[in-house]
Amino acid sequence: MSAKPTAVVLLSGGLDSATCLALAQSEGFDLLALSFRYGQRHEIELDAARRLAGDAGVREHLVIEINLRVFGESALTDDFDVPKNRCATNDDEIPITYVPARNTIFLSYALALAEVRGAADIFIGVNALDYSGYPDCRPEYVAAFQKMAALATRAGVSGNPPTIHAPLLHWSKERIIRRGLELGVDYARTSSCYDPDASGRACGCCDSCRIRLAAFEQVGIADPAPYR
Amino acid sequence: MSAKPTAVVLLSGGLDSATCLALAQSEGFDLLALSFRYGQRHEIELDAARRLAGDAGVREHLVIEINLRVFGESALTDDFDVPKNRCATNDDEIPITYVPARNTIFLSYALALAEVRGAADIFIGVNALDYSGYPDCRPEYVAAFQKMAALATRAGVSGNPPTIHAPLLHWSKERIIRRGLELGVDYARTSSCYDPDASGRACGCCDSCRIRLAAFEQVGIADPAPYR
Repeated sequence: MSAKPTAVVLLSGGLDSATCLALAQSEGFDLLALSFRYGQRHEIELDAARRLAGDAGVREHLVIEINLRVFGESALTDDFDVPKNRCATNDDEIPITYVPARNTIFLSYALALAEVRGAADIFIGVNALDYSGYPDCRPEYVAAFQKMAALATRAGVSGNPPTIHAPLLHWSKERIIRRGLELGVDYARTSSCYDPDASGRACGCCDSCRIRLAAFEQVGIADPAPYR
Repeated sequence: MSAKPTAVVLLSGGLDSATCLALAQSEGFDLLALSFRYGQRHEIELDAARRLAGDAGVREHLVIEINLRVFGESALTDDFDVPKNRCATNDDEIPITYVPARNTIFLSYALALAEVRGAADIFIGVNALDYSGYPDCRPEYVAAFQKMAALATRAGVSGNPPTIHAPLLHWSKERIIRRGLELGVDYARTSSCYDPDASGRACGCCDSCRIRLAAFEQVGIADPAPYR
């Protein structure tokens, strides 16, 4: 056992979760990375997750198979096209790339893993500013999950409820990138695109790519990730 | 589409969930039953779930494969023995048959299914009296999940948050059986045992069997389920 406290970090392989992983490490946590193969069309992001977990020297990287395709109804798991070249979604609209209850399912697994590994801390890279209208990326959602989690498990009953950390919640994408660069995150190793090609090159025009490219422009450097 | 409102009902195949299914039906809901193959050693309970779903004429019965065995650390999913002939667990002790974050994971999938099928109601047969010390069977847990769920999905954002129904929460097992019998539940078709044999016959001595047998004795009838 490590002398460091242990944290579970949800790691999709994208820019936000890569930064979140680096933040957790910078705070002195021993890392358990948790990723999901959930029927996402951009499954190649799991390669990025593995690269990032390896680079960070995490103690364990679990990739859990879950099948959200049985539910359908999302562009990320269903067989319809990812929207391209749309304006950024406004607050009243939830994009069709929203996956029903995805963060709730992911955090529930993180909660289970935290309990069995004796971790009191869970990190998730959700972001309320760039969240493109996903209900489960909002501060009030994270706070409510935290309260529920404190009541859900042995640790909570014993007076040591887990803490859900969402350090990027109120950060701009520009700030996320600047902080990640300070921490040595290699963004060439991340994958944010909803519709990458077979070799992992990003499309450059889905919502996720456009938000990312705009942020790198604000930072004043070129996005090092591969684009087609 | 049915004119009835739709409810998602978590259906393990046990006595409680069978009664919960009958209650939801008696309240006029069209039923979507949801079960999980989660590496449980008593996987034969899924046969009971299928029987009960068929008997009730549910619109859809989804059995989702999830692998909680990757986490280990529960007698229900791990390779150590189910405790036998112990006294009923007291309030200070959480039995080793507790599966980490199980109800949270199950309810999270129910939330996703409810959203994609347009169901505003979710039923779960948790019970606080006979809960044997499981943290995620307590009223405060269910209430906290409800609050989180209201913030987690499209429906909540649109002002129609889902309702988590836990009608058995404060009922004694005796009351559950009496109400189920009124509603025509055939308890011979249910499976509650943590350690059934290959043909589904209950052991009669695990915590779950003992609570069940005691309750049938209080009702004054023999448990019609098969015991070995």
